[in-house]
Amino acid sequence: MDSDWLLSILERANRIASSSQLDDLLGQMLDLVIDVCEAKAAALCLFDCQAGEMVCRVVRGVENSQKLTGKRIKIERSLAGKTLAQRGPILIEDLDASQIDPIEIGLPDLKRALSIPLWLHDELFGVVQVFNFVNPEIQIVQLLGNRMASELDKALLIQASEQRSERFKALIDIIGRIGSSLDRDQILKMIIESARQLLNAEAGSLFLVDEVTGELVLHFATNIPPEQWPSVRVPPDKGIIGYVARTGETVLVPDTQKDDRYYSNVAQNVGFETRSILAVPLRTRQVYLGGERGSSEERIIGGLEALNKANGTFDAEDAVLLETFANQAATVFQIASLYANTEELFIDVVRAMTAAIDAKDPYTEGHSERVSDFAVAIARELDLKTELIYHIRIAGLLHDVGKIGISDNVLKKPGQLNMEEFEEIKKHPKIGERIMREVRMLQTELAGISQHHEWVDGTGYPSGLCGEGLSLTGRIIAVADVFDAITSDRPYRAAQPANMVLDHLRAETGSHFDRACVEALVRAFQNGMIRVQGEPL
Amino acid sequence: MDSDWLLSILERANRIASSSQLDDLLGQMLDLVIDVCEAKAAALCLFDCQAGEMVCRVVRGVENSQKLTGKRIKIERSLAGKTLAQRGPILIEDLDASQIDPIEIGLPDLKRALSIPLWLHDELFGVVQVFNFVNPEIQIVQLLGNRMASELDKALLIQASEQRSERFKALIDIIGRIGSSLDRDQILKMIIESARQLLNAEAGSLFLVDEVTGELVLHFATNIPPEQWPSVRVPPDKGIIGYVARTGETVLVPDTQKDDRYYSNVAQNVGFETRSILAVPLRTRQVYLGGERGSSEERIIGGLEALNKANGTFDAEDAVLLETFANQAATVFQIASLYANTEELFIDVVRAMTAAIDAKDPYTEGHSERVSDFAVAIARELDLKTELIYHIRIAGLLHDVGKIGISDNVLKKPGQLNMEEFEEIKKHPKIGERIMREVRMLQTELAGISQHHEWVDGTGYPSGLCGEGLSLTGRIIAVADVFDAITSDRPYRAAQPANMVLDHLRAETGSHFDRACVEALVRAFQNGMIRVQGEPL
Repeated sequence: MDSDWLLSILERANRIASSSQLDDLLGQMLDLVIDVCEAKAAALCLFDCQAGEMVCRVVRGVENSQKLTGKRIKIERSLAGKTLAQRGPILIEDLDASQIDPIEIGLPDLKRALSIPLWLHDELFGVVQVFNFVNPEIQIVQLLGNRMASELDKALLIQASEQRSERFKALIDIIGRIGSSLDRDQILKMIIESARQLLNAEAGSLFLVDEVTGELVLHFATNIPPEQWPSVRVPPDKGIIGYVARTGETVLVPDTQKDDRYYSNVAQNVGFETRSILAVPLRTRQVYLGGERGSSEERIIGGLEALNKANGTFDAEDAVLLETFANQAATVFQIASLYANTEELFIDVVRAMTAAIDAKDPYTEGHSERVSDFAVAIARELDLKTELIYHIRIAGLLHDVGKIGISDNVLKKPGQLNMEEFEEIKKHPKIGERIMREVRMLQTELAGISQHHEWVDGTGYPSGLCGEGLSLTGRIIAVADVFDAITSDRPYRAAQPANMVLDHLRAETGSHFDRACVEALVRAFQNGMIRVQGEPL
Repeated sequence: MDSDWLLSILERANRIASSSQLDDLLGQMLDLVIDVCEAKAAALCLFDCQAGEMVCRVVRGVENSQKLTGKRIKIERSLAGKTLAQRGPILIEDLDASQIDPIEIGLPDLKRALSIPLWLHDELFGVVQVFNFVNPEIQIVQLLGNRMASELDKALLIQASEQRSERFKALIDIIGRIGSSLDRDQILKMIIESARQLLNAEAGSLFLVDEVTGELVLHFATNIPPEQWPSVRVPPDKGIIGYVARTGETVLVPDTQKDDRYYSNVAQNVGFETRSILAVPLRTRQVYLGGERGSSEERIIGGLEALNKANGTFDAEDAVLLETFANQAATVFQIASLYANTEELFIDVVRAMTAAIDAKDPYTEGHSERVSDFAVAIARELDLKTELIYHIRIAGLLHDVGKIGISDNVLKKPGQLNMEEFEEIKKHPKIGERIMREVRMLQTELAGISQHHEWVDGTGYPSGLCGEGLSLTGRIIAVADVFDAITSDRPYRAAQPANMVLDHLRAETGSHFDRACVEALVRAFQNGMIRVQGEPL
């Protein structure tokens, strides 16, 4: 062997190895093997020790060689298997006569074959094979084969690391999307779909702890029809999900048939075959509420399951990823719950207090709640922005809050009010505005409180506003207010039918009421969006 | 050259290259070079094209060779520089006589030197140098040198990818920690500290848009004393931060002296030298509030700056990382703001409505607010949990809400109440409980409303509760309520001094009032935690 020739080959190998395209690199390296041996074809096969098979990685020198990539060969009786068993090179002069199955590489007249085992970190890694060659340059092929093994190894390291990066990036994006919702149902839906996507799982399900019974109740599942979700209740001492929520541990079950914690009732009911499960707890962090509110407690609110990994089995890296995701997602859910609770508390307290004010006079019982509903219906028909509709709901509830400052004699008087009494009751919009003036977050609503007895021609009270001076909120609540008043009984007259009242309001558009608001109310009524007092449910 | 010898060398090189320890790999490869050339020493130097210098990567064959790692050599007149210029191997028989500075590797009698340039992806990468050798095996050294370059290249790829993974992991952790706070100040503090840490920056600052003036107001800075923060206000059309918040673009300024957007007023004031800046907008995502609330708008609420990267300059990867982080952090801040707004709205509305109820009788003006403060002071002295203290604050505000249902004649009566009137006013705890009964989130507070006129010996009203039947909230508010009543003027008597009232309450512990609650109130008073009506501010 000429050493200059050898050096030139190895220089070529170095140049090939500097490629960052792995397939290209391996292909060119096999071409070099073919040149060195003056061969027809060459192949690189890798050992899949789990399956006990060899997998074709690259083949060169035959037609349609790309089709052979991924081809699997049973170890027994194959040339690759024999090479692995022998732990050294095999050279065969006549493959046909050898009683050894070659790789079916589709090469005509397959005769001479050289098969060399490759080691990496002291483990068998694969074989490099050369067919119908002139020079059996075993040492050089071994050298080039080892180089391919080493390059493959490093490429896989880079690939794995980049995949990890990509998954983290995806996780960050998902957490960002989930974290920008305060809607609990939407959050749960996003959690389950994201988990499935992150882990490449066939299905996913999410259980929340029922705080009363301790059972795990199915809240979302991609493999079960929604109508069946609420009926799937797992006792806290049963099933993998029960175990996860009870202990806070992650559970990886590669084969559900072999794990006796598997609670098959659920699966049997829905006809979905669960082969493997990765289950993690949904554990909220301690949420710091700030100032004198302190922190909410860390706790397990449920569990998350990924079912049947597509193309493979769940591994430890999947488990860490799903745990990380579940903890973040649970905290987002917890924050949305805190928000929803405060929101509910606020609306319910306002509702309770205004209802109490209404209830001082039996004739106005439920009035504020109905005005609020009518005002919202008008606002929706006017296609207003959701944030404004929310303000209108609150303004509707609070429009008569000033009645706190009106004396009982006037408020509860069974008959018609006299002039003086009427002058007193006319103060309630101003009083209401004064009560709420200091509430920074309620500035939009003030107009609804102070202007709900103004008329569009400027003949209303307390300020005689008209035109641009009269806010949309004020106009809407004025219509809603009078509509409820006339469709309700009063000490001095009976409730009027809604249709008649709407005609009356229409007749007074332009003078008393805003035309667009009245027409919106008419449409809302016609569309069945509102119900007046005394109407059957 | 013997080809078997050559093959054995290359096999050894392959084995060395399979190491995943880069330093070890390069060192062993240089040892192989030394063996091949029968040399005294060898070195691998890498080309730093930005600095125009060579950097010693590994040296073998001399004492204290590890100290030479990282040593920098100017290109001009050095052997390495000459090699790069020549783009080919240089062999020198007598280095002393050559007028070329060698690397100062501390080798005695430095004579023969071989210096070979290394290429990677068609670019000059570095040089491998061999000293005081017997055999100048240029081709083999070139081969081994190229192999080192290739392995270094791949190792750097793996390292970069793993660093990216680590940074994403750190980012996920940071987002999780920030995302578990609803306290805006804490969130801002965490944002700035995390940003600095993520980017290895010397300092960081965070600006928020003033919604009225549009100016960018400094809210946190690690390089400026807190008392100066509020005075740092950047006009929206000035400075890098103004540009970022206005355009939503990321700005990377490697040298502030060369960027005319740099607004040096701030830096000059505080004596911090800003060399480089990475500035990103704080852009909130659209937050979905759920149901009829719809979504809040996406918008830029401010900007974030990382100043002076320690050991280097900010790069594009830093920019992407900080952008990603800033978007998530801004959304977390937005959610905390939404929560704080709802919380403020709720407390303010309750305060306004209860104040209006109190104000019906001029003698009880501000009563509920004071009772709430006193009750909280007692709860704090009793070292209760923050969540319970929050409930007690609300219960204190709402304790007299039942007065909505008491007629004005009784409520506003200028003199002492008669028996019948007293019976009516005694209904207010029950009425209050009834008003709030439907509010799911207020169940803890109900006891404070219904039991604030119960006495510990069972002689109070409305239910005559005592012992275990009387809740802690009820006991606390009972003490706070009577303390405010007696320290306030009434139509039938003047306000009593606080000290006297506390003595009176002490005398009635065990019969009327809970001893622990009264003692807690005494302590709170002595510690200056509460102020009674009429006391100077």
